[in-house]
Amino acid sequence: MASDHYTVILMADTKWTKEEVLELHRKLRGKVGIEGKSPINTMKDLSLLYTPGVADACREIAANKELAYEYTMKSNSVAIVTDGTRVLGLGNIGPEAALPVMEGKALIMKQFGNINAFPICLRTTDPDKIVEAVRHIEPVFGAINLEDIETPKVFDIEERLTEGPDALGIPVFHDDQHGTAIVVLAALINALKVVGKNKETIRVGVVGAGSAGHGIAKLLTAYGVKDLVVFDSKGAITNLRTDLDLHKMELANITNEGGFNGTIKEFQGADVLIAASKNGAVPHETLQNMKNDKIVFSLSNPNPEISPEDAQNFGVRIYATGRSDLPNQVNNSLCFPGFLRALLDLRVRKITNKMKIAAAEAISGCVAEEELQETKIVPEIFDTNIVPEIKRKVASAIS
Amino acid sequence: MASDHYTVILMADTKWTKEEVLELHRKLRGKVGIEGKSPINTMKDLSLLYTPGVADACREIAANKELAYEYTMKSNSVAIVTDGTRVLGLGNIGPEAALPVMEGKALIMKQFGNINAFPICLRTTDPDKIVEAVRHIEPVFGAINLEDIETPKVFDIEERLTEGPDALGIPVFHDDQHGTAIVVLAALINALKVVGKNKETIRVGVVGAGSAGHGIAKLLTAYGVKDLVVFDSKGAITNLRTDLDLHKMELANITNEGGFNGTIKEFQGADVLIAASKNGAVPHETLQNMKNDKIVFSLSNPNPEISPEDAQNFGVRIYATGRSDLPNQVNNSLCFPGFLRALLDLRVRKITNKMKIAAAEAISGCVAEEELQETKIVPEIFDTNIVPEIKRKVASAIS
Repeated sequence: MASDHYTVILMADTKWTKEEVLELHRKLRGKVGIEGKSPINTMKDLSLLYTPGVADACREIAANKELAYEYTMKSNSVAIVTDGTRVLGLGNIGPEAALPVMEGKALIMKQFGNINAFPICLRTTDPDKIVEAVRHIEPVFGAINLEDIETPKVFDIEERLTEGPDALGIPVFHDDQHGTAIVVLAALINALKVVGKNKETIRVGVVGAGSAGHGIAKLLTAYGVKDLVVFDSKGAITNLRTDLDLHKMELANITNEGGFNGTIKEFQGADVLIAASKNGAVPHETLQNMKNDKIVFSLSNPNPEISPEDAQNFGVRIYATGRSDLPNQVNNSLCFPGFLRALLDLRVRKITNKMKIAAAEAISGCVAEEELQETKIVPEIFDTNIVPEIKRKVASAIS
Repeated sequence: MASDHYTVILMADTKWTKEEVLELHRKLRGKVGIEGKSPINTMKDLSLLYTPGVADACREIAANKELAYEYTMKSNSVAIVTDGTRVLGLGNIGPEAALPVMEGKALIMKQFGNINAFPICLRTTDPDKIVEAVRHIEPVFGAINLEDIETPKVFDIEERLTEGPDALGIPVFHDDQHGTAIVVLAALINALKVVGKNKETIRVGVVGAGSAGHGIAKLLTAYGVKDLVVFDSKGAITNLRTDLDLHKMELANITNEGGFNGTIKEFQGADVLIAASKNGAVPHETLQNMKNDKIVFSLSNPNPEISPEDAQNFGVRIYATGRSDLPNQVNNSLCFPGFLRALLDLRVRKITNKMKIAAAEAISGCVAEEELQETKIVPEIFDTNIVPEIKRKVASAIS
């Protein structure tokens, strides 16, 4: 048992204050900027990079659009698209207020994935207009990252941009859904190794049916987890309910085979509990009712639904959160730089479960067998193997 | 007389080949990229720049949108917006093929103006959709640069984004119109000094009524040029014509006071001829019919409407082109980095003629009196005084 591994230690070097955050943002005035990749020192430079020479590159692309991947920034550019309706735990704060988060993402993509990502914060929350805006800006980009757009709208937006008449020719990655699911699966693969349980026999509860809960439930099911129940604020999602939207009906169809129809408080015998909910706390009874070798991922940020103290008190063996000041940080940053790197370099058109599972296996594989333990089920974001490993594994999943 | 100053000398160091252009573009795969402005080396860095710390910056902006200028990239970001319908002299080549030009512009803005400009190449040519797309992406940007969009559509787009219900809260700079006009005025100010003529008594012919011709005619008139006639492919633009669109009617109302109703071939007694036309050559008669101390700006790229040989043969005293391999390069790059720098730093909402004239005077002032001569009426783009001078003069024009 390792219940004291996650005693709350706010490590000195991760403490920060609001004033520090604001001062740093004020100093930077933009965490990302534009980098010129070729200096203009002579008239010849200007002629090659701009008029009149540039016309030759334009003519080539006009004759064959595909050459935009060869002669322009397209092959390595990502649009981080948001409407600011569901930013962090802050809710609908609008496009301007969402920008610091999108810049942070762009910064991480650059440093860890060498990707040129640019924030597109839209002044519209209408799903039709968002689809149209993304379609209109697409020519410059090699991939789209949808971010912090409210559910269920965001599912429709993603689907329309991926399939049917509005589909783009480039991949659409929905980080809150795909990214979270990939990192959770990576953490689960390693957690199961530590406790010696099997994906096909575990019972899993997922608390929350937003982007994250939705993506997690679908990916774990695709991975081979058989007994999984998703809970929204009203209780278990099951075919017996009549209040489900299309996206929750989809979950009801692929999960909860046993037809459990109670609340999270009544949920018995779980091996794994994954909370990704904005509605706060999970009842103590749920933790009490879990099987031995409890695995709990509590992803709400900055305040996990299940506190470190509760995890300790209820004998949780493996506890992971989204926090950087606790062990086992299940953070999307472990995934998106590498996954987008793979999508761009492999010229993927459409993301599949196979690719997502490959990425999760790549991330879990970055923790060496001998390091693997209750407090070390995911690598640190600073592990430079993650990005190339994700790319390598996704490439083999495709070929 | 200085007619041999502009003998065509393709200087060795400005010669380039198509292969060189393509090779450089292939090597760079994007002339601009994203630059991370703050490294993430520790979990504390991650907490300050991304979650959870970033939430503090988001909350501040959510409470007061204006703080986006303080805490984000907005204050120094420009969208270079095109629909690819009128790119260089290549016409409607589409958004992908337009991208190398927009990247080149972004590169110039960065190097000379320290501006973070990002290409937005739109997959729509519908003016309503372009207006909407620009409105939707506006939150991230401090200014919009419209580029290489066909006329007359682009005039409406600019007007709608500047005035009325669709107006943005940030300035809209239309480089083909405003930028060209500013640099032409800068060149004219110095050319008149060299030949000792006065703006109020000169006769000016403007050949071409597209974005450039339109902008030039309006700005020169605002500057105080009294006798100016604009020619489109059908002849002089005058109130007598019945085939004019709204934008040409506007020109008819503010120019051609004498009511000249002939063709460019019949145009007599011009002191200054400014060609900014895609329709190619200007007849020899026009050059023949000019007054002494002929001033000719021939801006079509890469082939000037009036060749250097013709300029020489017809005794042109001051000859300027858009070409980098001839003296007197009238190039928008002299203006847009400094003008956008000024718009951003001074938080300008709407561009006025007063600002444009101030910018032109700043550029012309960068050629010292003692350097001023037939072959030196504009500074070189590498002159580092241009950007601060434009900003200084535009600031005084506002205050």
